[in-house]
Formats: sequence, structure tokens, C-alpha cells
Amino acid sequence: MVTYKEAGVDIEAGDALVERIRPLVASTSIPELLGDVGGFSGLVRLPEGMRDPVLVSGTDGVGTKLKVAQVAGRHDTVGIDLVAMAVNDVLTSGARPLFFLDYFACGRLDVDVAEKVISGVADGCRRAGCALVGGETAEMPGMYEPGEYDLAGFAVGVVERSRIIDGRNVRPGDVVVALPSSGLHSNGYSLARKVLWEDPGRSLDDVLAAGTGTLADVLLEPTRIYASEVAALQRTARLKAIAHITGGGIPGNLARVLPAGAAAVLDASSWEPPAVFAALADAGVAREEMVGTFNLGMGLAVIVDEADAHACLDALERLGTPGFLAGRITERGDEEPAVRL
Amino acid sequence: MVTYKEAGVDIEAGDALVERIRPLVASTSIPELLGDVGGFSGLVRLPEGMRDPVLVSGTDGVGTKLKVAQVAGRHDTVGIDLVAMAVNDVLTSGARPLFFLDYFACGRLDVDVAEKVISGVADGCRRAGCALVGGETAEMPGMYEPGEYDLAGFAVGVVERSRIIDGRNVRPGDVVVALPSSGLHSNGYSLARKVLWEDPGRSLDDVLAAGTGTLADVLLEPTRIYASEVAALQRTARLKAIAHITGGGIPGNLARVLPAGAAAVLDASSWEPPAVFAALADAGVAREEMVGTFNLGMGLAVIVDEADAHACLDALERLGTPGFLAGRITERGDEEPAVRL
Repeated sequence: MVTYKEAGVDIEAGDALVERIRPLVASTSIPELLGDVGGFSGLVRLPEGMRDPVLVSGTDGVGTKLKVAQVAGRHDTVGIDLVAMAVNDVLTSGARPLFFLDYFACGRLDVDVAEKVISGVADGCRRAGCALVGGETAEMPGMYEPGEYDLAGFAVGVVERSRIIDGRNVRPGDVVVALPSSGLHSNGYSLARKVLWEDPGRSLDDVLAAGTGTLADVLLEPTRIYASEVAALQRTARLKAIAHITGGGIPGNLARVLPAGAAAVLDASSWEPPAVFAALADAGVAREEMVGTFNLGMGLAVIVDEADAHACLDALERLGTPGFLAGRITERGDEEPAVRL
Repeated sequence: MVTYKEAGVDIEAGDALVERIRPLVASTSIPELLGDVGGFSGLVRLPEGMRDPVLVSGTDGVGTKLKVAQVAGRHDTVGIDLVAMAVNDVLTSGARPLFFLDYFACGRLDVDVAEKVISGVADGCRRAGCALVGGETAEMPGMYEPGEYDLAGFAVGVVERSRIIDGRNVRPGDVVVALPSSGLHSNGYSLARKVLWEDPGRSLDDVLAAGTGTLADVLLEPTRIYASEVAALQRTARLKAIAHITGGGIPGNLARVLPAGAAAVLDASSWEPPAVFAALADAGVAREEMVGTFNLGMGLAVIVDEADAHACLDALERLGTPGFLAGRITERGDEEPAVRL
């Protein structure tokens, strides 16, 4: 007689995990949440008083930043990255993040590791102000090596239709108020791992450069979640466009929110990128590749009327997360790039 | 100088894929959809006229059914499974599926394979009546073997709060109207692969048993999506509870929707399971393991008042997807199991 456990799937470990994550999930509760963990699906009401609510959703993974976490044995922050990547996308439409679901896949379920990963997801959800309403833990023997896992995340937010932010009102003369990134966030890790870790044969415990922590510290710095910053900015000014700087870098992502005929001219001397970017350039990554792959210290770019710029910067200062004036919007000539940096 | 492509990530292949899936995504459009592919996030309005809308979400993967697809080189149906697993969960609350997002992860992006997979996702979305509003294609060199990929899916639906189905009105005397599964659906594949494929050393091209197709046909039969059936049943009767039969089998999933003091007594002779289940039993899977792992031919169980049973069966007959009366609800004694089969 053959049992499921012999075939490599441990239902009891899955049940044990569900018990352990229950308090983590509960820590992310919001007033709109109905029901509890254990049903077939998560139930969330809409915030009260909305007239024409529009649901905004995003999905992402953490990429090969996971490899760093797995080799370093530090599993408690990649969940923050997971929430950040999806929630920051949702924020770009002006939506308030409402709920999140995660997918955790591995070859053999290690309950301790999975609990740490999901504690990071719950941490990220608290930072984003959204409820963790569901998740899937998939044990797939033969698909993942021992110690490896993959993660995917799904975020849903809601915005009043009349308040959707989509870049259509961006005009020459507007300015780019930018929010600093905490480091690489969760993009470009296949390249970063190669040039900072594998090719030079560094250990994750080596200090990367003067003034930085270990390579593990630098590579595992959690992605910033901009939910409270965007909420504060929305209370301060009319936000015309928001770009989340991910794969494709500042030019690739900022260009997506500019209307035809508008260009963004940025002054790279107006902010100080985290040390990891200098280390990448020193390691031989070409300027063009740097610009097209990494965030270079800018995590989120917000376009506002010039008259609102100082109020926005003041609001961020009061939150304790200073932003910077990164550049301005100009007319775009036929031959000009959408973003100059 | 090091480039991202040398590090194993091909941005151009990703861009090519986005172009190829654009018409697939467009084929899933619904009236509530706003905006288009390419923004940071998918935007969907709520259906008109809802008073207290509740969002219902679910996430799932396809498990190691993917292994079968990858070895067989048949990639166009696992996307249907992906949508089915999440959408059928969302249906259990009485919600209408609204939108879906997918996560596709691989070691090296094969645009042809990814396009086939996502064509299946779009097919599933059309069957479910929901819009495919976003997705993530993750190329993670070193995380997945060549030819391997993983999939995760995320579905959101909406239900009027007063019409949420949650099992609280289930009473002794109610009946279980069941909808047949198309086969294994997407659960228990680690065990099924072992006993039907690997241990006996069968080829996927071998015919499994008299009257079945090849092993590949049987193992890749797409999971049924019950959206139109549930919608028809909702127009016919008050549905008191719905259970989606996945991992844990009929007892594990039906028990989740029964109130305290109620038991379900099923008559296994009232339906004819697909041939794959007999093949699993013949291959040595113990009865207890069969019942606790596989759906045994029941994909969805719906509990209604006995007076509504025939109208429900008639409605399913008219749709061309006959259901069956699988059993009834009784008082549950202290020592009795919640589900007897």
C-alpha cells in the first residue's frame, strides 16, 4: 500500500504550518476583513463610503534574491520584499492596499523556514496596511532542490474611480518628487549575485565595501514599502503620476507614466544612492546596464505640480522618510528619449 | 563589462512574450475592465448595482501535474487547471469570479512554452468569465532546471454580503447535489505520478487502461471550472454550502462547510468515478489514502434544501453538465465522523 507521505508530501507538516501562521495572519487584520483563516477563500468588504470603487491588483515574485536568503539561511525578510513588489505597483494607481495572498512552493516543507518566510509576509502586510487573507503552501517533490523555495505574491487595493492616478495630467513644468530606495529592492539579482558574489568568489559574510554591512546584509536589505508615504502625499497634493522603479530601471519605469510629448529630465546629482550601486559599477557593470536594470537609489517617482513640491517634501520629512526633488518634466522633441538621466 | 543577458536573464524574450500574450489577454475582457496591459497594475470596476460588495479571493498552484505537462511537452492546458483551482475556491462563497492574475516562473524563458501556458490561463479565464488582468513572468537562472516551470494563480470575485454562502443554514434533511470531476483535477499528483507512471515504469504514451486514453491524456485532463454551473444553481435555488473537493478529498473538504452537529452521509454508488480512480486503487493505493487524497469523481459538492434538489439537477441537465444526488445531511452524534462515505 502506497501513502501520500511516501510519495513525498507531508500533510501533517502543512497542518502544523497552518497553526503556526495563524497568529501572524491575525496580526495583519483590518476592519474590512470578514471571516477567518481556514475557509476556502478570503473575504474582505470595501471601505465605507466609496462611490465608484475600482479594484487595482498586482502580482510579483522576489526573483533570485531568494537564492541569497536560502544560502544565508535568513528567511525572515524576503516576505517583506514580496509584499513590497506587488503593493508598490498597486500604489501607483493611487489605490489603498486592501489585501494580499502569497504562494510558497518548495520541494519538501520545512515548517521552520516556511514560518519565517510567512512572518516576513505578515510584516510586509502590516507595513502596507493590508490584510493577509490567504495563501498556498505547495510541496512539490522533485521540482525544487532541498532548501530551495519560490514565492509569489498578489495584492489588491481599491481607489475611487475619480481619483485614479494615471499620468494623463502630467505637463511640462511639473516636477519629480522621488522616494529613496533602501538598496537593490528585488530586481537585478541575477546580475548582482554574479558580479558581487559568484564571480569574485566572496562569502556572504564578507563586508562588501567600507561603510556597508556584509554582502548578505546588503543583498538582503528589504524592499521599501511606500504605502504610508503615498498616503501622506495624497493628503498633501494632487499626485499626477507614480512610477515604481523595478526591472527596466528609472528610464523604463518612469517612461510608462509619461503622456506623449512629455519627457522627464533628472539630475542624478540630486540624490545619494546606497553604496551597493557604486560597488556594482566598480565590479564592471556598464553604465547603460546599471541604468536599465537597477533603481539607482530611487524607489518610487511621484510627479506633481511644481507648486506642490515643497509641501510634498515637507510631508515626507514629517514622516521621517525624506524624499528628494529629482528633476522636472519638459516638452519632448521627436528625437528625444522620454527620460534623461 | 557584464550585461544582464550574460547573467542569464533575457529582457527581449520577456518583451516578445508580452506582445504574444496581448491578444490572449484581450480575449478575456469583461465589461468591468478598465485600462490595458502594460501599466503597473490591473484595474477592474465592480459590477453595477451592488449594495455591500464583498471581495472573495483565492490562490493556488497546479502542483506536480506540471511535471507531467513538462515531460509530455503539452503546455496548453495547465493554465486551465491553474484558473480552476483558484476560481472554484472563490465560487464556494457564492462569489462571481471577476479577475485573475498569474505568476509563471522558469529558469530560462522559452517564449513558445510560456505562450502556450498563458493561452491555457486565458482559456480558463474565459471558461470562468473572469478577466486576466495581470501576470508576472519570472526568469530565475539556477532556480529551475531547463524545461521546468512553476505556476501560481490568484482569483478575485465579488458577492453581495447578504448572499454569501457559508454553510450556516445547513440542516439535517438537506441534500448534497454534486458535480462530477473530470479526473484527478490538480491534487494528489505526487502520489498519482509515483504509482501510475514512475513505479510501473510506464511511458506517458501508454494507454492506462481499457477505455481510457494515454497516461498523458488521463493525467493532463484539465480541471473542471464550475462557474457556469454555480451561476445556474444560484438562479435556481438558495445554495446553503459549496465545497470544492481538493487535497483532503471529499471528507476533508465537505467537513469544512458543515455546521457543528451536522454530518454528511454519502452513497458512493450514486456516481460513477472516472477510470483513473480504479487504476489508482489497482496500483496499490489504500482505500483510506484514496478517500483522503483524491476527489473520487466529485469536483464540487453543493448543499441545498431537499425540496430544491430536483430543480438543481434539472438546471445542470439543461446546461449539459449533469450532476448527481450524492447523499444527505443528518444529525451528527458525538462519536460520528462529519462525513461518511
